[in-house]
Amino acid sequence: MFTIIFDKKIKTPLYDQLYQFLKTEISTGRLAPGEKLPSKRKLAAHLKISQNTIETAYGQLQAEGYITALPKKGFFVEEISDLLPLQPTKTKHTPQNPKSSEAADLVKTNQSYLYDFRTNVVNTDDFPFDTWSRVLRTVLAEDRNQLLKPLPFQGYFLLREEIARYLYAYRGIETSAEQIIIGAGSEYLLSLLIQLFGRNHTFAIENPGYEKIRQIFQNHHLAIDYITTTQESLDMTSLINSTADILHITPSHHFPLGCVMPIQLRFKVLTWANEKENRYIIEDDYDSEFRFAGKPIPALASLDQQEKVIYLNTFTKSLAPSLRISYMVLPKHLMTAFSQRFSGYASTVPSFEQSALAMFMTKGHFERHINKMKRLYKIQRDTVIQAIKNHPLEDHIHIIGEDTGLHLLLQVNIGLTESQLVKTALQKGIYLTGLSSYYHQGIAPISKNTLVLGYSGLTPEAIRQGMKLLLDTWQEAAANLNKEP
Amino acid sequence: MFTIIFDKKIKTPLYDQLYQFLKTEISTGRLAPGEKLPSKRKLAAHLKISQNTIETAYGQLQAEGYITALPKKGFFVEEISDLLPLQPTKTKHTPQNPKSSEAADLVKTNQSYLYDFRTNVVNTDDFPFDTWSRVLRTVLAEDRNQLLKPLPFQGYFLLREEIARYLYAYRGIETSAEQIIIGAGSEYLLSLLIQLFGRNHTFAIENPGYEKIRQIFQNHHLAIDYITTTQESLDMTSLINSTADILHITPSHHFPLGCVMPIQLRFKVLTWANEKENRYIIEDDYDSEFRFAGKPIPALASLDQQEKVIYLNTFTKSLAPSLRISYMVLPKHLMTAFSQRFSGYASTVPSFEQSALAMFMTKGHFERHINKMKRLYKIQRDTVIQAIKNHPLEDHIHIIGEDTGLHLLLQVNIGLTESQLVKTALQKGIYLTGLSSYYHQGIAPISKNTLVLGYSGLTPEAIRQGMKLLLDTWQEAAANLNKEP
Repeated sequence: MFTIIFDKKIKTPLYDQLYQFLKTEISTGRLAPGEKLPSKRKLAAHLKISQNTIETAYGQLQAEGYITALPKKGFFVEEISDLLPLQPTKTKHTPQNPKSSEAADLVKTNQSYLYDFRTNVVNTDDFPFDTWSRVLRTVLAEDRNQLLKPLPFQGYFLLREEIARYLYAYRGIETSAEQIIIGAGSEYLLSLLIQLFGRNHTFAIENPGYEKIRQIFQNHHLAIDYITTTQESLDMTSLINSTADILHITPSHHFPLGCVMPIQLRFKVLTWANEKENRYIIEDDYDSEFRFAGKPIPALASLDQQEKVIYLNTFTKSLAPSLRISYMVLPKHLMTAFSQRFSGYASTVPSFEQSALAMFMTKGHFERHINKMKRLYKIQRDTVIQAIKNHPLEDHIHIIGEDTGLHLLLQVNIGLTESQLVKTALQKGIYLTGLSSYYHQGIAPISKNTLVLGYSGLTPEAIRQGMKLLLDTWQEAAANLNKEP
Repeated sequence: MFTIIFDKKIKTPLYDQLYQFLKTEISTGRLAPGEKLPSKRKLAAHLKISQNTIETAYGQLQAEGYITALPKKGFFVEEISDLLPLQPTKTKHTPQNPKSSEAADLVKTNQSYLYDFRTNVVNTDDFPFDTWSRVLRTVLAEDRNQLLKPLPFQGYFLLREEIARYLYAYRGIETSAEQIIIGAGSEYLLSLLIQLFGRNHTFAIENPGYEKIRQIFQNHHLAIDYITTTQESLDMTSLINSTADILHITPSHHFPLGCVMPIQLRFKVLTWANEKENRYIIEDDYDSEFRFAGKPIPALASLDQQEKVIYLNTFTKSLAPSLRISYMVLPKHLMTAFSQRFSGYASTVPSFEQSALAMFMTKGHFERHINKMKRLYKIQRDTVIQAIKNHPLEDHIHIIGEDTGLHLLLQVNIGLTESQLVKTALQKGIYLTGLSSYYHQGIAPISKNTLVLGYSGLTPEAIRQGMKLLLDTWQEAAANLNKEP
């Protein structure tokens, strides 16, 4: 049993102190791989703190991959050592078009629905419109001349400073305004990266993954490799077998699988990038703000010692989709080439929005908004989970990836296929997506009867009603199935 | 002598009726190529209208290339017949980097200047900030929910409708909201076009031309051909000798030469495009709003019968550089492919700006602003010309391309080279650009001692002072030159 002296004078909560302590113990090897951690009950008694505190710290360590939980056995320290460099072999996948399923066709012809559980919906009802309007009016009144002048190509300096501050505080990334580029959406920024890297690279994306990302690379007529991704996160063998040198990933919250990339894998992926000069990782941190259990998981970019990670994020999810403000953080050594090529381009986001967002952040409104939305989204997520727990189908539904972000997976084991699950829902006006439609190529077994459910666009009351209708519908469909001869 | 019956009940001014009448007569061949038009004096007496009216109509016809003026001989009808298709031969130019002249180096080290006569400056002092703010506040108050929802990928429908209306009224283009795509700047829209056309095209741009356009194509790692352009506009032989199939041009006001593409050449270029299925023209109409003599020259897109012209324009020049709102009009048959590829992309301009601009246009503010700026820019241009006329160097300076847009050319024949002209000016804090720096490859003789002078960012008083200082400086430098042994 280890002992930690809590510092009660500092603001850092106890669970965080415990988490930091254990992380250091594991990273330095003082807690050896395979070692069993004390049970929550025992450690609580030993340290004279509540079991909840320990549960939170363990949960965070587990989410980040420092420890692993074995059912009925307890928590064990994971292997976090330096990893041997591995030589990639030559296998190349060719791009492939997405499958257009029957369900997708049905969606196209049936545009009206009662409950929209898709993932690209952002709750804007709780957007602080009055505050935002006030900020806009202030900017309009105060920055009159500023607003009409062209901005630096990287974007408004004060906004970039605010973003740098935010990234340090919330994502553990040490950077400065000089390395940040603001742009009108992630598509635009990715297109700049594609122009920067040129045509002699192969780009790799996660499979399954975000269709739009594939679309962007395909629209640029680039070679794409697909890297197998499972509930256990990115498959290193698949990456090593690929000839790709630029890897696009969503480590904080895989889209759509919902998994968090464990710490060992993060180091492995960084090692992969470090092996060759031209290798880079594009870390898409699209909804990392909304982590419900424990504290946010530090970005991959925060672990990057060799300037290999390009960090990409957006205010589209955290504020509103109509505010097209995204940003990326380029490693220092790429900034020279970037400036040479793109300093002639104009900043794509109006000064007005950039000034307003800078003021919104400076005054703490952004942080307050994120915290508020986290609470609200957590209520929405809990409502989904509760609705399932209260339903007779409870034991047949496995919830996956519910700790982060604005969607989760439902694996529904009631004898219906994914397509049947989507279609029966749609017939009642409930719109949700089958996991298989996120596969760029091939389909993993998990997807057979798994749905991706986004809850961010619905009120808790709508979620309650929608989930009830959804589950009743599935129950009925399953019953009918069994009745058939 | 021909006779035209003026309709005095309709609002169309007499000069316009005369212009329309003559245009039809020439287009249909009733006025034959080479035929001499009556002198202004004689026609005025014949039609019982003022000579000014005739001068305006003739000036417009001349600017559009329907007639030509021979000194001391009068006005003659040009050849506007169907042109024989010509087969392009195989010659390919390779992209080349811009020359970095000594003068450019001097600029980099000497950032402070008294008078900025560069071309990329927009006068924002006269931007109707109060009206714009009022519109923004109205939008903010009225469209609350609208503002937070994602927009169609093409942009806000009402704004696209306003643009379609504007294009019909001012540029003669018949189109609809369905064919218009709004984007955060011309760079972004061009990048979409590049993605749409793919990698199997050669793109051609005008030489000399806008450096940023070359940069965009080069950043996309595309093959570029340079098409020779002179004071007489695009050189068809150069185009025919090129293997390019997508041609980017500025027919309404060549940048930087200032010339307007004559009507015969417009038909020739369209014929070139019509010859092959994969050929297209990107018409960049960047500052066509500001034509000072006669009425605006119809866009090339308005003459396009075979869906070969993609029309591109921006509000950056006409409103303010910080409002990143550009748009393009795609031929109908390209819209299907475009939607398939890009409907997953989000609109890059915030709803807020799009709604505000739509309202700004609907209420007539945009039209009023353009008219006001046209008057102001004309005063600025006249101040430049007057300053030259009042100076002893008058006879040594040839002004070119002063009828349209926000810049003109000065060919200065006082024994100094272009580089000397730029440098001596810079030493007195006057910033203007030599024509040679706009050449992507090779330099035409005209550029030897020619400067590009943008006057849009300076008040008339500053122009008066700046031009006086500039001309005095050159005069002195020329005198010193002659004194040298």
